[in-house]
Amino acid sequence: RILRFLHLYIKELPKPLFLGKSIGDLGIGTFKNVITATSETPLIEALNMFVEHRISALPVVDGSGQVNSIYAKFDVINLAADKSYNNLDITLGEAIRQRQGRDQVERVATCQMTDTVRSVMEKIVKAEVHRLVVIDECGAIEGIVSLSDLLNYIILRPILEAE
Amino acid sequence: RILRFLHLYIKELPKPLFLGKSIGDLGIGTFKNVITATSETPLIEALNMFVEHRISALPVVDGSGQVNSIYAKFDVINLAADKSYNNLDITLGEAIRQRQGRDQVERVATCQMTDTVRSVMEKIVKAEVHRLVVIDECGAIEGIVSLSDLLNYIILRPILEAE
Ligand SMILES: Nc1ncnc2c1ncn2[C@@H]1O[C@H](COP(=O)(O)O)[C@@H](O)[C@H]1O
Ligand SMILES: Nc1ncnc2c1ncn2[C@@H]1O[C@H](COP(=O)(O)O)[C@@H](O)[C@H]1O
Repeated sequence: RILRFLHLYIKELPKPLFLGKSIGDLGIGTFKNVITATSETPLIEALNMFVEHRISALPVVDGSGQVNSIYAKFDVINLAADKSYNNLDITLGEAIRQRQGRDQVERVATCQMTDTVRSVMEKIVKAEVHRLVVIDECGAIEGIVSLSDLLNYIILRPILEAE
Repeated sequence: RILRFLHLYIKELPKPLFLGKSIGDLGIGTFKNVITATSETPLIEALNMFVEHRISALPVVDGSGQVNSIYAKFDVINLAADKSYNNLDITLGEAIRQRQGRDQVERVATCQMTDTVRSVMEKIVKAEVHRLVVIDECGAIEGIVSLSDLLNYIILRPILEAE
């Protein structure tokens, strides 16, 4: 039973070493084929990207890869529940400006490949978000690290290591 | 181009009729093979359910199917970022009690099969959650309706209807 094995395995590790290692070294996150949009992307196309790629959020980047914002599935429902449902015609940039009317200042929660798993977890918890955008030293997007990536690693690591 | 078609289609529908229809009638949500846990489920088993079934939250039900709580991926990372990482040994009930220390009163956001899409969207937005637990008149769990379900319906409906 994998579960029993997992159980014993995790019990035997009082302070998991991986918490102090970087997500880059451990390969936690998505760094290839990262799906992004720009503020010119039509909202309807962004919705399509959510469904087609089964992702839950789209980083919004500018021409040089700087991350300006993030647009999530939740924002779509928020917009749809609002008056503006009909307006799937607008661009992501406009949709984000409408959202900001409510939320005021918005900062995208980010981290770097060299950040430790512990610090990534802490940032996620503090920002109360489902994923961080991974950026390089210049602020250009390199990837995404989500709750799923962390959880998969925590659960699958003992199994992979035992093989 | 599907996208162009979608675009035109949605523009032509000033007030989408489906907003006033119930999620039960439209079949929006998951009502078969709903994955649940109890407060006795070991945390490690819950983590395994997240990964195995690729779900983002587990309704915690009692013997008669009443929904007491919901445990999400975010809670795992929260717990792991906390002191209690080692303690994957505890039950979901204990993990939830620890969480409640912080969040105080907790209410599971729910809806019924007879609720309209509009009201489901509004509840999701108001509660700032990613999914509602669908319950019957007695409070027993019947299913889950998530952001993904709504978005898939919004995007796929025009395509399905055109076929
Ligand atoms: N915009 C994106 N582009 C590429 N991969 C992503 C994106 N957003 C999330 N992912 C990855 O998709 C998987 C599921 O993400 P999530 O549903 O957000 O937990 C994880 O492996 C993420 O790293
Ligand atoms: N505990 C669960 N049991 C069964 N299906 C679920 C559960 N949670 C979410 N789902 C479904 O899984 C799909 C993805 O959900 P989500 O990732 O939460 O947006 C949606 O169709 C949900 O209705």
